[in-house]
Amino acid sequence: MNVDVAVLYVLVIPVSGTYEMQKDHMDYAVELDIAVKPTTPVPKIGNEYGYYVGAGNPLFSVGGAVLREALGEIFKRYHVLKGYKLVETPILARTTLYELTGHLHFYKENMFLLNIEGDEYAIKPMNCPFHVLIFMHSLQKYGSKVPIPFKTFELGKVHRYEIAGALRGLLRVRAFTQDDAHIFANQANVLPAILEVFEMMKDVYEKIFHIPVTAESVKLRLSLSDKSKIGEEFMGSREEWEFSEEMLHKAADEIKRKYGIEYFAQEGEAAFYGPKLDLVVYLGEERKEWQIGTAQFDFNLPRRFKLAELVKETHGIEDLYMIHRALLGSIERFIGIYLEMFKGRLPFTLAPLQALVVGIKTGNEEVDSKIDEMVKEVESKLREMEIRVSSMYSTKTRLKKDVRKVEGTLKPPVVIYIGENEAKEGKLFIRKWDFGASKRTNVSGGMEDLVEVINSMEGDVVNLIGKRVRIPVDLSYLV
Amino acid sequence: MNVDVAVLYVLVIPVSGTYEMQKDHMDYAVELDIAVKPTTPVPKIGNEYGYYVGAGNPLFSVGGAVLREALGEIFKRYHVLKGYKLVETPILARTTLYELTGHLHFYKENMFLLNIEGDEYAIKPMNCPFHVLIFMHSLQKYGSKVPIPFKTFELGKVHRYEIAGALRGLLRVRAFTQDDAHIFANQANVLPAILEVFEMMKDVYEKIFHIPVTAESVKLRLSLSDKSKIGEEFMGSREEWEFSEEMLHKAADEIKRKYGIEYFAQEGEAAFYGPKLDLVVYLGEERKEWQIGTAQFDFNLPRRFKLAELVKETHGIEDLYMIHRALLGSIERFIGIYLEMFKGRLPFTLAPLQALVVGIKTGNEEVDSKIDEMVKEVESKLREMEIRVSSMYSTKTRLKKDVRKVEGTLKPPVVIYIGENEAKEGKLFIRKWDFGASKRTNVSGGMEDLVEVINSMEGDVVNLIGKRVRIPVDLSYLV
Repeated sequence: MNVDVAVLYVLVIPVSGTYEMQKDHMDYAVELDIAVKPTTPVPKIGNEYGYYVGAGNPLFSVGGAVLREALGEIFKRYHVLKGYKLVETPILARTTLYELTGHLHFYKENMFLLNIEGDEYAIKPMNCPFHVLIFMHSLQKYGSKVPIPFKTFELGKVHRYEIAGALRGLLRVRAFTQDDAHIFANQANVLPAILEVFEMMKDVYEKIFHIPVTAESVKLRLSLSDKSKIGEEFMGSREEWEFSEEMLHKAADEIKRKYGIEYFAQEGEAAFYGPKLDLVVYLGEERKEWQIGTAQFDFNLPRRFKLAELVKETHGIEDLYMIHRALLGSIERFIGIYLEMFKGRLPFTLAPLQALVVGIKTGNEEVDSKIDEMVKEVESKLREMEIRVSSMYSTKTRLKKDVRKVEGTLKPPVVIYIGENEAKEGKLFIRKWDFGASKRTNVSGGMEDLVEVINSMEGDVVNLIGKRVRIPVDLSYLV
Repeated sequence: MNVDVAVLYVLVIPVSGTYEMQKDHMDYAVELDIAVKPTTPVPKIGNEYGYYVGAGNPLFSVGGAVLREALGEIFKRYHVLKGYKLVETPILARTTLYELTGHLHFYKENMFLLNIEGDEYAIKPMNCPFHVLIFMHSLQKYGSKVPIPFKTFELGKVHRYEIAGALRGLLRVRAFTQDDAHIFANQANVLPAILEVFEMMKDVYEKIFHIPVTAESVKLRLSLSDKSKIGEEFMGSREEWEFSEEMLHKAADEIKRKYGIEYFAQEGEAAFYGPKLDLVVYLGEERKEWQIGTAQFDFNLPRRFKLAELVKETHGIEDLYMIHRALLGSIERFIGIYLEMFKGRLPFTLAPLQALVVGIKTGNEEVDSKIDEMVKEVESKLREMEIRVSSMYSTKTRLKKDVRKVEGTLKPPVVIYIGENEAKEGKLFIRKWDFGASKRTNVSGGMEDLVEVINSMEGDVVNLIGKRVRIPVDLSYLV
């Protein structure tokens, strides 16, 4: 073992130590340069931005935009490869749209309304009405050529009112982005569609976020009707409810058979417009329960927009079903949960600062000049590879403190140390965060080993979408 | 010349014929599946979506989302490569923010306001206040490490009130997306920054849109102060105005020297908060004048946010300047202009349907089966390449009518014909749209020639951002 490594061995910060425990997700977000912390409403120019933006409207900083862009790139491409149509829908619409959908009746208190030239408009609280309009437009224009199932996907920003007292960092906001999709299917497509949604959840959680979707870590929850109240509290026909609930049961059985994942049914817990299946994930040391992904039937919107009549005309289909689904739900909330549960650790592809090169100076001019040269070379090669990298210098005595500052805040997934021995041997001491083992692991080697480390950290995403996601915003100033 | 080609030669649709003349940009947008046409306010379920969305809030359809995604991917990557920081800023903010910026005083009639729990909020009419907040946040957190110039970029959706009567398709809307950037620079950076903005305009117009930025096709307009009114109508110090206007003049001189592009100055035409340089483009047969790109000084916001004080503290800089800039301005308006001027022709990377394979059946079973096989093979190879492709079949007698229907509406940049001769020779008849010559040109050859045609059509974008942009949404149902 060389000396530098010996120094590093004592650097492991206790993951559940006092320092870490005091932080919540917003602390991590601020340290990672993801978000600007909402502050108390004290107007002090050049200090309290939270006040200007207003509670519940997160302001992302440069690192946050990078994270969101990387995630967006992965999600959009993944959905396209799965046959979804990308859509992008407006923020504002006349409330006549929401009269038609029924939202103005049953959801008005959560909607932000405004008046334009005497007409009432709303900031969209959900994307679904627009997805329906786009499906209808396609049907009317392209008729039977429109593929059924028709699957639309949008990273759609929605706004919903919450009382100020209920707002909390990224976990509970008034403005958030949904990974929102809608599936318009006939009966024969429904079961495969639900199973595909589950497979996509599994893919996304495991390959992007290193969250295992296994019998040990997740459950499925079916929220069903109270059969005695169909037609009253639960709208839609008995046939629709029975068919949909049967499909959810079949899907859950199939998932149990294939992966051993358990499910539990809650009767009477369905929304009034349809039953649903939720993915419940247990995260963190306390295995806290989070409901994240969802697939939900909707018997309401197709009726309101007379979709069945339209699809009958174009496709001769009499059994149209509409399913809402989200893999993460609210991206903001998911990031918040993730930061809290993984204590600020982000996957390589999403981390604002991906790699840090640390030169450990010795005081010997010749050695230090070699170290300096190697640091610059590694940094520049990583930059060429479009990795978001920065560098810093330390000394053996300051190293512990210096590195803890960066490791405890910016948490770069890969740190490359170059000290006396590395300079002499022309090697790199590479330390990477291993999500599986939940600890740092070390590799000693050359540039080709570093490239391999990075390739392995990106491998799952490449596997998912068939390409690397590299967004080379220069964030070197964060260190 | 083979027979199929002879048939095709008479297919050239007159570019300025009666049929084309009757269309405006929204007709093209609807035909290309970019937007859903805003309709008159007649509520008729399953027909008039325009009514539900409301005037001025364009609803994009599937092809539109693809176009916007492709453009977004190019723009974001291009800006990152040019050293910009990506940002993503909120839609809603308290009007206290706009009190501070001054917008609530001088721009209120264009802002959409709403009340939340007794506090006034606004839907953002511009992105700049948020970019300033992010710059301030970075300065306060990272101090002197923040690079100056600091350049932020966002495809930011803004909403501005316009009277209903003024709205027109995509050209004049109430909701639009700006390719919005802000440059925070000191005096020494200002001239290079303006010149870089011009080079970026040139790059983007020429390489993405095939719009030459030359002495023949564009001019620069400088909007300057009336020097006698500095301190009254024009806010800011005499030194700021003189320096900024000098820099604009120097930039314009340098551009004239390098490219021969003329400029003209309009005194007294500056905004009250700073002088600007606009790119004026002459498009279409009538060489209609469009003001598109802009670079604009702002002496107001830095004062309002006390940026100079902050940068003096962090960087010791006493001469901070802020420049707003957009290469396209409003993406919606730019798309509208482009569709109108180029009669619905879109560059290969942006066109919703990129390629069409046409099989020309003969009635001879053996030949037709070979044609069919070739059509399927070419389509499937293009699909593997992630090109948005569709196919159709016709006959010699119907070909003219069938192809005109697609060529006159969906306008795929590449059409591959496979008829009797192609089947016999195992070759493809490739017809591509040539923006430079403003006409279709033909290539006969194999699959490798088709790949070369596509590579050449994508070459400028690859050159611009170092990679291909392929968004393989399946739009085959459009044909």
